[in-house]
Amino acid sequence: MYVLHYAPDNASLIIRLALLEAGLPFRTALVDRSTRAQDSAAYRRLNPTGLIPVLETDEGPISETGAILLWLADRHPELAPQAQRGDFLKWLFFLSNTAHADIRHLFYPDLYVGPEGHDGHRARLQARMQTHFGQLDRVADTPLFAPPSVLALYAAALLRWSVLYTRPDWFRLADYPALAARAAALEIRPSVAALIAAEGLGPRPFTEPQPCRPPEGSAL
Amino acid sequence: MYVLHYAPDNASLIIRLALLEAGLPFRTALVDRSTRAQDSAAYRRLNPTGLIPVLETDEGPISETGAILLWLADRHPELAPQAQRGDFLKWLFFLSNTAHADIRHLFYPDLYVGPEGHDGHRARLQARMQTHFGQLDRVADTPLFAPPSVLALYAAALLRWSVLYTRPDWFRLADYPALAARAAALEIRPSVAALIAAEGLGPRPFTEPQPCRPPEGSAL
Repeated sequence: MYVLHYAPDNASLIIRLALLEAGLPFRTALVDRSTRAQDSAAYRRLNPTGLIPVLETDEGPISETGAILLWLADRHPELAPQAQRGDFLKWLFFLSNTAHADIRHLFYPDLYVGPEGHDGHRARLQARMQTHFGQLDRVADTPLFAPPSVLALYAAALLRWSVLYTRPDWFRLADYPALAARAAALEIRPSVAALIAAEGLGPRPFTEPQPCRPPEGSAL
Repeated sequence: MYVLHYAPDNASLIIRLALLEAGLPFRTALVDRSTRAQDSAAYRRLNPTGLIPVLETDEGPISETGAILLWLADRHPELAPQAQRGDFLKWLFFLSNTAHADIRHLFYPDLYVGPEGHDGHRARLQARMQTHFGQLDRVADTPLFAPPSVLALYAAALLRWSVLYTRPDWFRLADYPALAARAAALEIRPSVAALIAAEGLGPRPFTEPQPCRPPEGSAL
């Protein structure tokens, strides 16, 4: 059985959705960020970078959201888009190394410029994210982003976090209608109902995100 | 036949090495950065983000360095490490979304904080890169990073660029002995001789990098 090491509303939610969509049995293990459990020796043995999530599998622990998604999609083809392999990989890496990597700067400016933040940094990262969402929106109505493709799951989480964990004045979901339509179609699926219940994400977690009220743990 | 859209000493060099290591026929097409050819309509049709490289294949153009490497490694297993799939994917995504994503901030501070740069940004990104290279060094002597694994090719390029395209006072190759050993073993392979000749990279491009003197095009 899979074990998902998670924290509420962290990137682990994307892996939880993938496991639910594929109907795979799993249990969860909370990584308590309030005590910085991600820095514990036990967690660092699972993932030396300390990032969340880790998925324990029959071939050992796997970390990195994109890597876990791809590993699952290769075993459970319903999670892979009906598309050319190269296109799938290209957009998965783009989500991971560009969209997700850049939005982290808006979540955690202290990690990248310092506790006061920096106006030029914030403005540039916001503009970059607008460009990235624009790129994604132009392909979102292709089969690549049809739920339950892992690309759809990943993109929906980035929409949510843009509203909740940045100064969201730069972000309007209506600017990305194809992405918004995919997120709306995703959030009525049973997998999302289970996710909402497990992590306290509110009724429309991707198109009308509300702060997370998890039954255990904290998001940050 | 593959067509590699490249610029000298850009991430395309990693793909060139992979093609050479697998003995695959390919031709190259220079993307002339001095005229911003990466922004041309023709190039944007190949890759809407404008980033270099693109590899044209029998299933269409593929972009994103990590995606191309994985696509090639799945077709040509000599490029994949003798390791668990999950471990391979994890470190490939780490190289792409963490090490490569972060080092871009030191190459191009104007894209992320502004033309003057920012001391707090530079210091934090340098420290992050030291941590990332430390993480890589602790696994570099495993089969994951044995040349010609694509992980070895990717890591070697990051070592080179750290010296040449950042203020390199933060970087000492000797701090990462296992990575340095892998890079030294790589650079005596015939693939690297062909790379050096094609892109003007000097005799020891990874362990004693010298500025690129390409026969055509420019690196930046």
